[in-house]
Amino acid sequence: MNLIKETQKLIEEGLVSALKTHNLPELYNPISYTFSLGGKRIRPVLLLLSATMEGASQQTALSAALAVEFFHNFTLLHDDIMDAAPLRRGKPSVYKKYNTNTAILSGDVLMIMAYEQLAKCDANRLPLLLKRFNRCAIEVCEGQQLDINFENRLHVSIDEYLEMIRLKTSVLLGFSMFAGAYLANGNEEKAETYYRVGEKMGMAFQIQDDYLDSYGDPALFGKRIGGDIMMNKKTYLLLKALENADDSLYKEISKWLEMKNPNPDEKIEKLKELYRLSGAVDDAIRMRNSYYESAMQAMSKLGADQEAFRALKSLSERLLMRES
Amino acid sequence: MNLIKETQKLIEEGLVSALKTHNLPELYNPISYTFSLGGKRIRPVLLLLSATMEGASQQTALSAALAVEFFHNFTLLHDDIMDAAPLRRGKPSVYKKYNTNTAILSGDVLMIMAYEQLAKCDANRLPLLLKRFNRCAIEVCEGQQLDINFENRLHVSIDEYLEMIRLKTSVLLGFSMFAGAYLANGNEEKAETYYRVGEKMGMAFQIQDDYLDSYGDPALFGKRIGGDIMMNKKTYLLLKALENADDSLYKEISKWLEMKNPNPDEKIEKLKELYRLSGAVDDAIRMRNSYYESAMQAMSKLGADQEAFRALKSLSERLLMRES
Repeated sequence: MNLIKETQKLIEEGLVSALKTHNLPELYNPISYTFSLGGKRIRPVLLLLSATMEGASQQTALSAALAVEFFHNFTLLHDDIMDAAPLRRGKPSVYKKYNTNTAILSGDVLMIMAYEQLAKCDANRLPLLLKRFNRCAIEVCEGQQLDINFENRLHVSIDEYLEMIRLKTSVLLGFSMFAGAYLANGNEEKAETYYRVGEKMGMAFQIQDDYLDSYGDPALFGKRIGGDIMMNKKTYLLLKALENADDSLYKEISKWLEMKNPNPDEKIEKLKELYRLSGAVDDAIRMRNSYYESAMQAMSKLGADQEAFRALKSLSERLLMRES
Repeated sequence: MNLIKETQKLIEEGLVSALKTHNLPELYNPISYTFSLGGKRIRPVLLLLSATMEGASQQTALSAALAVEFFHNFTLLHDDIMDAAPLRRGKPSVYKKYNTNTAILSGDVLMIMAYEQLAKCDANRLPLLLKRFNRCAIEVCEGQQLDINFENRLHVSIDEYLEMIRLKTSVLLGFSMFAGAYLANGNEEKAETYYRVGEKMGMAFQIQDDYLDSYGDPALFGKRIGGDIMMNKKTYLLLKALENADDSLYKEISKWLEMKNPNPDEKIEKLKELYRLSGAVDDAIRMRNSYYESAMQAMSKLGADQEAFRALKSLSERLLMRES
């Protein structure tokens, strides 16, 4: 645990230092605000732990760690506009606290700030790192586009859903682990294994996020429980419930999806029960665990630094067991 | 003229090729649309001419040229949302033709595509190029923020205005010339002179744009003449007219600025006349020419390839003499 706390401290200090050099408050205050909301900083932690696992000092990879956290927060600023999400970690999202134009422009700057941090990495490793970061960034946007497309479609398959969350969420975790390892050892092939580990962990985390949106602890969850259900969002749980359901269960689920102005509490409770009945909840937990175990198995073969590997495992397990 | 035509052809072919590799139409069609609207491609032309002036083949700098054009078009997609500008080159702007979310996300992808092109540049020159591009990109966003801030302020000085257009417009022209020269010769100091030339040309072009918005040829101008005047936009012309005006002229201008629901044609005609009377139009033309001449003077000392330099001069003069 010590290593994780040290890593998080390094990241928070790095963020403070990277954010304090600018003026023009209309542009930069929304950025400071979004970082003041906190967050688990999973991506930079994974990146720095990967560097440690490959025997490098975290300082070597710190600017890349800030880059992935900046990029992630850029996506939050823009996604919250597109998803009309008024809350972020229990506080007004940037476009709500300020306005849409501010969230657009501050988000743009935040993306460029990610590239500014990336540009500070070892010049010999920069060309490949930049190329991989660009690919990852494009994929994240494509994932967001697929997510939007799915809202307007009647049927989405589980495979399509998994590909969407791979793009929207997992590739950035994959890139984070790739970058930490590659900056540490310059070995692209080995870093590629870290990429696949991060990608699988990302899948596990996202399925857990879907689960928590319906079954998390209301006292700890930053937003209202059941938001996905109320919006008929095509999550793993809903898609799997529809896939598993027999005729009568399918009709029952469809009835709730199509109901105009349902009582929110009733709809949420009912669908949570139907998800359980269909076996979708068990399937989600099984799928989550399977991604996680596959990630850890690949990781264990890499001969990485053991203290850092144990820290990674303990962090991941806390994230996957969490109730908020 | 031959060199310019060849340069433009190379750029258009490069754009076609860089845009055709993607699917996911919801995300990429808006990007193809925005390029189909055309445009003068001034930034990539300047970049490639700078490479030629320093004796390199244009192919060396083509991906950087596409990068600046992609970045410029990204700013158009997002700025049109922020400025609520329904038209772009006489056609619906992206957020109008599609919707705001599409313009946000396609714009984001376009910015990343700029970095994808940049990543293809010579690896030895990439670190500095990326650093300079990032700085330029941040400055463009800061310029847009200042432009927005000025809308909500009563008084803006000419110096503040010039700094705003330097950031919003000129630094990208400066970077374009820097990048072409630097990719050609690897000489940062010499490339810096190209930067200053491009920056000054950008100032001249922007003052010309302000002028054309009020005095351009309605038959050739892509949007309605007098848009800036109708929106009380704090352009060089308005700020200079207010600075030059004696008491009675100042009152007359202020009266039109404050009038609720004026007749548009009348307001436009009247302010065009008041701008002339105040000497602001003459001052704008003088300022524009002074920036341009200073740019050409710096350029002439560089010992650049003469054919390319003549092409640059002839292109610039056409742009500065244009009526639309």
